[in-house]
Amino acid sequence: MRVALLLEYDGTAYAGWQVQAGHDSVQARIEQALNRLFGTPIRLAAAGRTDAGVHALGQVAAFDAPRHCETAELQRALNALLPPDIAVRQAREVAASFNPRRDAQVRIYEYRIRNRPLRSAFGYRYAWHLREPLDLELMGAAAREFLGEHDFAAFRTLGTQVRSTVRRIYQSEWRGRDDLVYRVEGSSFLRRMVRTMVAAMVEVGRHRQPVASIRALLREGERAQAPAAAPPCGLFLVGVRYPLRAGLDCAPPCSSKHWGAMPD
Amino acid sequence: MRVALLLEYDGTAYAGWQVQAGHDSVQARIEQALNRLFGTPIRLAAAGRTDAGVHALGQVAAFDAPRHCETAELQRALNALLPPDIAVRQAREVAASFNPRRDAQVRIYEYRIRNRPLRSAFGYRYAWHLREPLDLELMGAAAREFLGEHDFAAFRTLGTQVRSTVRRIYQSEWRGRDDLVYRVEGSSFLRRMVRTMVAAMVEVGRHRQPVASIRALLREGERAQAPAAAPPCGLFLVGVRYPLRAGLDCAPPCSSKHWGAMPD
Repeated sequence: MRVALLLEYDGTAYAGWQVQAGHDSVQARIEQALNRLFGTPIRLAAAGRTDAGVHALGQVAAFDAPRHCETAELQRALNALLPPDIAVRQAREVAASFNPRRDAQVRIYEYRIRNRPLRSAFGYRYAWHLREPLDLELMGAAAREFLGEHDFAAFRTLGTQVRSTVRRIYQSEWRGRDDLVYRVEGSSFLRRMVRTMVAAMVEVGRHRQPVASIRALLREGERAQAPAAAPPCGLFLVGVRYPLRAGLDCAPPCSSKHWGAMPD
Repeated sequence: MRVALLLEYDGTAYAGWQVQAGHDSVQARIEQALNRLFGTPIRLAAAGRTDAGVHALGQVAAFDAPRHCETAELQRALNALLPPDIAVRQAREVAASFNPRRDAQVRIYEYRIRNRPLRSAFGYRYAWHLREPLDLELMGAAAREFLGEHDFAAFRTLGTQVRSTVRRIYQSEWRGRDDLVYRVEGSSFLRRMVRTMVAAMVEVGRHRQPVASIRALLREGERAQAPAAAPPCGLFLVGVRYPLRAGLDCAPPCSSKHWGAMPD
């Protein structure tokens, strides 16, 4: 029986999603809990590997349960075993062929910036604090430059092997004032791509680079020309969309703090 | 030169406001920072001593600076030295006689409850999670029982010495649905009083006790009859009001996540 989990986690305490020897990871914590429940090692596959310190409101992961189980019961049992900063929002039986990474059509991320003079004793875990007011009109124009299909070679982490660095962006916009949220939807993302896009737009918002710098980075693909990635604390994987066949759910089109999509 | 600080802190990591040997406290952290800035030990006095794990959005503390200083500069320097979970929202020169505890006229607390089936990987630090739906109408009626002057002997921590257990409550109400906020304004509060009031109201909201149980607790003053205090994570000291003489500020009357009052 194949089961998909819709997951929410505060990434602050973890070395990212993926299991790494000697580090605490979200995947390891959930696999340990599944192992305890089923009495046998279980391997989870996820829609996307979030980096150290990156959060998720709608990560999707799947595994093969060694025996039939009630998904509602499984969800309750997992939430009782998992640490408080990891929660299972839904558990659902899916087709044996379901692959959360390969089947994902759209991934949705949000990046939060606190653009106020004072830092917050609460928000520091969940937003990049930038004191100087950013030029939101220019940041909006910079965000629109990413729409469509582009080569994101300048926005990847060097040293990562990927077949292609071409990605398609469906939505890319800044919302809010003082507390800014960047929302981006794309086919898939290279490692650190969203955080590097954010850093490049912030350069524009600070009047250090023109809006045209984004187009130049996309055209020339020079990683060295792009700024260092924005801090991980501001980034949230908010949802993943799967095809509508077989009644698969879609993430709702409106932004909200707590939603995501689940395969049916 | 006497200086008042308006402080915000996430209490999760601290053994409360007050300095305690062998424990990390908010007061100790700020005194250490002041000590570094002025090169001499400085003692802070606060409007209220928050317990371990309790948060503040508008704690007020004061100290005597050994020399004249620019308060804006002091605020920046303190925020640069303090850990990310403690922030100085304002720093202001006050009269030499200002005493943040004695001069406080009203203290405002909020208590947050997540009343949803699922726990949150983010909110667990800032709300009490109660799965079963609470009866909000009964909780509202229970909250109104606290209005006015009462003997809160049943709601204090045993073992604490206080001259009187009589306190006056000016506002006491629940707001919201699913994410509940209890807001209470009073002259001052006994130790653990708000958390014990919340626990007693939750007993009513769960239909374990009638609304009249609140009146009985106030009338009879039997600590053993009251339930154990609600967890500290849900409690926020949101503001303190000082007299209007000499242009002292007031906390705005409307609830919001980030406000408080400061002496002028």
